Amino acid sequence: MTQISQFFPVWDQLTPGQQQQLSEAAVLRSLPKGSVLHGGVDQCTGLLLIHSGQLRAYALSDQGRQITLYRLFERDICLMSASCMMRSLQFDVTIQAEKDTQVTIIPSQVYKQVMEQSAPLANYTNEIMASRFTDVMWLMEQVMWKSLDRRLAEFLLEESALENTLQLRITHEAIGEHLGSAREVITKMLRYFQSEGMVKLSRGMVELTDPDKLEELRDRS
Amino acid sequence: MTQISQFFPVWDQLTPGQQQQLSEAAVLRSLPKGSVLHGGVDQCTGLLLIHSGQLRAYALSDQGRQITLYRLFERDICLMSASCMMRSLQFDVTIQAEKDTQVTIIPSQVYKQVMEQSAPLANYTNEIMASRFTDVMWLMEQVMWKSLDRRLAEFLLEESALENTLQLRITHEAIGEHLGSAREVITKMLRYFQSEGMVKLSRGMVELTDPDKLEELRDRS
Repeated sequence: MTQISQFFPVWDQLTPGQQQQLSEAAVLRSLPKGSVLHGGVDQCTGLLLIHSGQLRAYALSDQGRQITLYRLFERDICLMSASCMMRSLQFDVTIQAEKDTQVTIIPSQVYKQVMEQSAPLANYTNEIMASRFTDVMWLMEQVMWKSLDRRLAEFLLEESALENTLQLRITHEAIGEHLGSAREVITKMLRYFQSEGMVKLSRGMVELTDPDKLEELRDRS
Repeated sequence: MTQISQFFPVWDQLTPGQQQQLSEAAVLRSLPKGSVLHGGVDQCTGLLLIHSGQLRAYALSDQGRQITLYRLFERDICLMSASCMMRSLQFDVTIQAEKDTQVTIIPSQVYKQVMEQSAPLANYTNEIMASRFTDVMWLMEQVMWKSLDRRLAEFLLEESALENTLQLRITHEAIGEHLGSAREVITKMLRYFQSEGMVKLSRGMVELTDPDKLEELRDRS
């Protein structure tokens, strides 16, 4: 289990009292795969320090459509689950465990209290937010300037790398939820990929049959 | 002219030395309408405190397409022109003066120095970034879930409110740059609006002839 201190490069710049405040409030928790942790501005679970597993942050439309904003892995800190700490952070992000995930939770109020006293912690929190902001700007540019075929190729390659397999157990619906597209649109594009020999489709499965060609498509300028 | 102190609600929580550091480094500057101030991660002009005028922050694609991310007005602080302060802020935003604009510039290095010492200033900077993050998330959701006709209606109404006129002097190209769409797409949609009696088009001009109907379209769920 990773120590709390190892999540914060600025830990040594906190006073012993501040270190104690954070440590004492911290709670270990297991999030089973599929569980949804944070659903919007109202809930405010706290900061999540990820020991193992994988989280997905996504936005949800009124009509129930989803788009994956970013993913968090071992050693990452999830700030959006403590968004109530910041008055000006006024948008809803939902956090879902994509794998069985072990986290330490630091309650928002405690973290906020320490952050208000500690310039190093406030500046480090700034950096975490800046990273997520950068993720979202990247996605924004993808959505604006990149066509869906390239984004789909990229998604399949990324999933394949994450799961360490060419045979992805994933539905067209789930892919749509990552990319913010309707299932029908994904199905149509996947069938096109299949006709080009890049994937092979079967029930609940997408097999990458020509990763090189998918990479070529992804990197096309 | 607004005092620097009035831009920062936490000014009184800075030490006299910190206040002096910021004040002494501050430089007044006029940005003529149309001037581009900050073009990417490499340049790092500094924090801009806006006394009067209007700034537009936009993203630029490799192909030269633009999309407006947010706008800043009197009393706002532009943080993205000082993005080099934060290691994790890794995306390019261009800032353009949409009107003749008066700003006070605080050089990034000076601001960063004070922010690293002052928890109140670091936390306030966090809030500024959170506001811009919120703006971009809002836009992201617009782009993902809202159709172009509604976004165009919204843009025309906003412009009309900002300029305080129903007769907008703006080209289809410029509208495209705000909304991230090609000129032809905007022209087609504006012609449709015209056929519906919502606007009247002439050279370099879009006249809002039925703002109520545009509002209806914008608010359609």
